[in-house]
Amino acid sequence: MHTVEKKYTFGVLTLSDKGSRGEREDTSGAYIKEKLLQSGYDFRSYSVIPDNKQRIVESLIELIDKQQIALVITTGGTGVSPTDITPEAMTEVIEKEVPGMAEAMRAASLLKTSRAMLSRGKVGIRGESLIINLPGSLRAARENLEVVLPVIPHALEKIMGGTSDCGID
Amino acid sequence: MHTVEKKYTFGVLTLSDKGSRGEREDTSGAYIKEKLLQSGYDFRSYSVIPDNKQRIVESLIELIDKQQIALVITTGGTGVSPTDITPEAMTEVIEKEVPGMAEAMRAASLLKTSRAMLSRGKVGIRGESLIINLPGSLRAARENLEVVLPVIPHALEKIMGGTSDCGID
Amino acid sequence: MHTVEKKYTFGVLTLSDKGSRGEREDTSGAYIKEKLLQSGYDFRSYSVIPDNKQRIVESLIELIDKQQIALVITTGGTGVSPTDITPEAMTEVIEKEVPGMAEAMRAASLLKTSRAMLSRGKVGIRGESLIINLPGSLRAARENLEVVLPVIPHALEKIMGGTSDCGID
Repeated sequence: MHTVEKKYTFGVLTLSDKGSRGEREDTSGAYIKEKLLQSGYDFRSYSVIPDNKQRIVESLIELIDKQQIALVITTGGTGVSPTDITPEAMTEVIEKEVPGMAEAMRAASLLKTSRAMLSRGKVGIRGESLIINLPGSLRAARENLEVVLPVIPHALEKIMGGTSDCGID
Repeated sequence: MHTVEKKYTFGVLTLSDKGSRGEREDTSGAYIKEKLLQSGYDFRSYSVIPDNKQRIVESLIELIDKQQIALVITTGGTGVSPTDITPEAMTEVIEKEVPGMAEAMRAASLLKTSRAMLSRGKVGIRGESLIINLPGSLRAARENLEVVLPVIPHALEKIMGGTSDCGID
Repeated sequence: MHTVEKKYTFGVLTLSDKGSRGEREDTSGAYIKEKLLQSGYDFRSYSVIPDNKQRIVESLIELIDKQQIALVITTGGTGVSPTDITPEAMTEVIEKEVPGMAEAMRAASLLKTSRAMLSRGKVGIRGESLIINLPGSLRAARENLEVVLPVIPHALEKIMGGTSDCGID
């Protein structure tokens, strides 16, 4: 249904101290990869790194500036724990914020659990790429991805300079 | 229904590369002007300028600091295209952000189309003026204006130092 | 119902020019204090200070860095009046923003009154403490507190480094 016609490249970046030490299976990252493949995106990169702000910044820049990946989905590090630093790394990486995507994900999750209001994930644009922060839990990541998946192809088309009528901008 | 008692001045600033070259009719800007006139506001300025960050910053400052217009409504440049730069210009102009107005516009539009989550418009205060970014499409601009119109008179009264009970602050 | 098992400390900071001069009874601050006591929190501090940005910054830092209070609830100064400066003070104090809590409070209030979109309160983390801005009016403060109260214990547990499963991060 949301299969993309043009093959956009994507990468998954999992932020997890435990995951990076091999102490926790990355079910969320695996799910996101599978879901995007099914949706017609072109897989390019997957990695698990610790919740270190500088590492996150460098990884995102590498995926976008060097590898020129169109869509980078992160999972983890969006909560309120001392280690959760993904949104702060995003602030240093993105050139434009897309607050409505983050708001829409939280609003949808809020219908399931009030704890969704603690999710601090951001969505933003760097160059011609879109970065979306999903929560680390599989259930929350799945719910959130469901919310934004329908608009990603259009977003990427516009981000890359497409001029089709958007109806919103 | 939402007719303002006190006559607040307003200006419309359309951000559009095509519009500024005369290649596209500015139906949204015309609509906004008409709607605010009908609502009892006092028209002062209308212009169409290209999606150039510095130009937008200068125009907003001119309208507010020089012309002392109370309400500036922009249309266009709120999407995710490379040229869409209105929110980034706003960041340099506004002294206080009013995130709830932007959230409310997006939430209302989201009921109509999931693409509303790509709208990045901001609302903010500079001096004693309110600046509201609306999307560029006529349909979206109309829908969004409908959402904020009822609260603008009260917002302007408070921004200008009015001390009536607000019920929210 | 939302009684906290572990006793978290809390402080109430009321921002009000009139209140600080003794010209206005602080019904909101009194309500917040009473409500948190009933919910099982450990009262530590209550003060009323004027809407002065530097004073607010200093007070918040004092409550958190010196007094090590876990939860600081402010009331007032979140509107669009020239004196309303609480969100701007927050920007200088918080290390991490929790936008979802502010969004959820506004979304809930919006069901009651469209003026809720003018509420500019922020929620954020400094060190191991959570700061929540509530509006100044008793009705709005009560409504907003109701929205966030259920998630505060979990938020504080995580902020302090607790590792229980959150379901969202």
